[in-house]
Amino acid sequence: MSNTASERPAVTPAHESSAATPAHESSAMARARELGAAVLGTTHPNPPVGAVVLDAAGVPVGEGATTPPGGPHAEVVALARAGERARGGTVVVTLEPCAHTGRTGPCADALLAAGIARVVVAVPEPTELAGGGAQRLRDGGVEVLLGVEEAEAADGALAAWLTGIRRHRPFVVWKVAGTLDGRVAAADGSSRWITGPEARAAVHRLRATCDAVVVGTGTALADDPQLTVRDADGADAARQPLRVVMDRRGRLPGTARVLDGAAPTHVSAAPSPRELLAELFTRDVRRVLLEGGPTLAAAFLRDGLVDEVVVHLAPKLLGAGAPLVGDLGISAIDDALTLDVVDVTRLGGDVQVRLRPTRHTGAGRPADGRG
Amino acid sequence: MSNTASERPAVTPAHESSAATPAHESSAMARARELGAAVLGTTHPNPPVGAVVLDAAGVPVGEGATTPPGGPHAEVVALARAGERARGGTVVVTLEPCAHTGRTGPCADALLAAGIARVVVAVPEPTELAGGGAQRLRDGGVEVLLGVEEAEAADGALAAWLTGIRRHRPFVVWKVAGTLDGRVAAADGSSRWITGPEARAAVHRLRATCDAVVVGTGTALADDPQLTVRDADGADAARQPLRVVMDRRGRLPGTARVLDGAAPTHVSAAPSPRELLAELFTRDVRRVLLEGGPTLAAAFLRDGLVDEVVVHLAPKLLGAGAPLVGDLGISAIDDALTLDVVDVTRLGGDVQVRLRPTRHTGAGRPADGRG
Ligand SMILES: NC(=O)c1ccc[n+]([C@@H]2O[C@H](COP(=O)([O-])OP(=O)(O)OC[C@H]3O[C@@H](n4cnc5c(N)ncnc54)[C@H](OP(=O)(O)O)[C@@H]3O)[C@@H](O)[C@H]2O)c1
Ligand SMILES: NC(=O)c1ccc[n+]([C@@H]2O[C@H](COP(=O)([O-])OP(=O)(O)OC[C@H]3O[C@@H](n4cnc5c(N)ncnc54)[C@H](OP(=O)(O)O)[C@@H]3O)[C@@H](O)[C@H]2O)c1
Repeated sequence: MSNTASERPAVTPAHESSAATPAHESSAMARARELGAAVLGTTHPNPPVGAVVLDAAGVPVGEGATTPPGGPHAEVVALARAGERARGGTVVVTLEPCAHTGRTGPCADALLAAGIARVVVAVPEPTELAGGGAQRLRDGGVEVLLGVEEAEAADGALAAWLTGIRRHRPFVVWKVAGTLDGRVAAADGSSRWITGPEARAAVHRLRATCDAVVVGTGTALADDPQLTVRDADGADAARQPLRVVMDRRGRLPGTARVLDGAAPTHVSAAPSPRELLAELFTRDVRRVLLEGGPTLAAAFLRDGLVDEVVVHLAPKLLGAGAPLVGDLGISAIDDALTLDVVDVTRLGGDVQVRLRPTRHTGAGRPADGRG
Repeated sequence: MSNTASERPAVTPAHESSAATPAHESSAMARARELGAAVLGTTHPNPPVGAVVLDAAGVPVGEGATTPPGGPHAEVVALARAGERARGGTVVVTLEPCAHTGRTGPCADALLAAGIARVVVAVPEPTELAGGGAQRLRDGGVEVLLGVEEAEAADGALAAWLTGIRRHRPFVVWKVAGTLDGRVAAADGSSRWITGPEARAAVHRLRATCDAVVVGTGTALADDPQLTVRDADGADAARQPLRVVMDRRGRLPGTARVLDGAAPTHVSAAPSPRELLAELFTRDVRRVLLEGGPTLAAAFLRDGLVDEVVVHLAPKLLGAGAPLVGDLGISAIDDALTLDVVDVTRLGGDVQVRLRPTRHTGAGRPADGRG
């Protein structure tokens, strides 16, 4: 088994790698993924990684996740919590420990210093700069398993960061609240509130996992949203994603609530979604929440620039009003943009469906077959 | 407890009645509901009832459901299966046993003859004609509990039959297959197939639970559907619901597949959904599957004549095409027709959402607050 692992396949099929991992390490990996997901949105431009330390007997003795830039990485946090109990143990981590000295020292060295005997990694480090961690560990006598439950980790908290590495653009989550008959607003333009409080709270939690929230002037003018992350009591969260308005014609009035100073705001004149994403990428944005109306949704979808869709379906019928998405240039059912359902959750009286595109209509199809 | 039961409240709150029932009887009631649901669509105009016989020790020894008209009722089937083991036992049944002699003898008498000691009933018999069963049983020394888990049974298999009794019209299930953005067909009119094979198989199972399937000329002309119940191999089921086309202007061509003789067909010139339902009611139809397009769906919804909605959501986006439902005369979000989600199920790659209207836009609101 360590044989297979040392061959380091480009993409290890999930079933193969899972088979190589004992159950307690698989549980630790699931926990590591959770830890990484919990810091999504707080680590950019670093990857949100989760790590669990098991002692020599396989018992969890420490866990950690990436701290904000400048702070320690996940493995270092977990090792610190484990202390001496880490010696001779195993570290289970969602991303290969780094071998380079950035603002913090190399994690590989910390693992060697702690006397770790085995390291189980989901996603091999994809960058040259930070790479070599597994090799340095092996050179130090540590057994390293790479690609364990890789797909689960790569599609989870690491997806946005990997998209940045592989496609040099932020990962885009399109969130939309619609009625059963696909309306995002009534005929008179009213859209507050389509969904109930549980779904609206989920939107704030979703915003908190993103580095930027994007709308178009259509939404900014119609709804005048504040686009901040607020808790149940309406209080602003400490960390706020960048608020972005696509306003190529300068229609946003200075009185708009997105300009209220409660969080940073970027009014962009980018002529296309692709150019907007390039702009945001240079600002270290790795995960974007698209909360625009049907016009922007269609523009992003047409260009193949939506990586995940979160639909909040309200059990309501309107029979008229703005549609979920504007024209996509599709006229036949066989040309429909198709997605895969990731999960379905009930949120109060509403239903949340998370999806990933299986086929893009535009040019966004990645070369590596992911997406 | 038998005290409470003998008071026969008009509607027993579910929690109260549940509290009065021991766990093994509650399981038997759940099973009885299942048994009733399994014969939905085969018993009209009789109610689809389920019954379970427990022996004196509370062990299930026989079960049954309503057989097609002329055949024995659920209790009689269950008693026959239980045989002598029924003596001193309990019968758990979704509807109060009848006291009248129709095509079959009174069920109450059969229970007395079998020496049953206790009868647990969900829904009290609502008709004068068949009523009096509980009284006859009590007169015979049997303990009778009425209204146990009544709402669950009344909202389940018995809903259509109760709608017939209370509103003198069939129960209407509107089934629609749409994309995530609420399109039932693409811009060019193509709609085969929006959903996958699992969802399409579910439609055939749903049709089999109904006495009639209704479309308008729009759907008949655009899709030329056969509207029969077919199994996975495409073979026609033995029992077929009545196929109905609303064709007030005589546009249905004689070559339409609904006229192929594979099942009975009724081409109706009824000017409105209400008049169509009255027509169908006189033909013993108690449960209608509305499979029409957005025009008929809107007509039924506007008149408050939809009792249940089954939406098959395909994870696709079209951006254009016929909407799930036509104009409902609603222009503000606060006037939306609201529903409650009953359940959400994944069917292959698609998602099924079942709902019940909480507020009708039209005149269909029942006086008793149900619906
Ligand atoms: N239920 C929901 O989840 C939800 C969410 C958002 C909005 N809405 C509703 O949607 C409606 C607004 O829809 P909308 O489509 O107008 O909103 P939008 O997509 O947010 O804004 C569209 C506008 O963005 C501007 N824009 C800037 N760059 C663009 C580009 N590259 N491509 C396309 N447009 C660009 C355009 O205005 P210029 O031509 O001036 O550049 C365009 O009209 C409102 O009724 C709102 O309530 C609902
Ligand atoms: N995805 C799905 O689940 C699904 C299901 C069904 C249909 N569809 C699609 O829906 C489209 C057809 O839509 P549609 O709305 O035309 O179909 P429809 O609702 O089945 O038929 C509407 C027609 O029914 C006739 N009608 C008779 N009595 C009526 C009454 N009282 N009120 C209103 N109409 C009455 C009208 O034609 P007259 O004026 O001639 O009387 C009307 O145009 C097709 O593209 C089809 O593929 C999709």
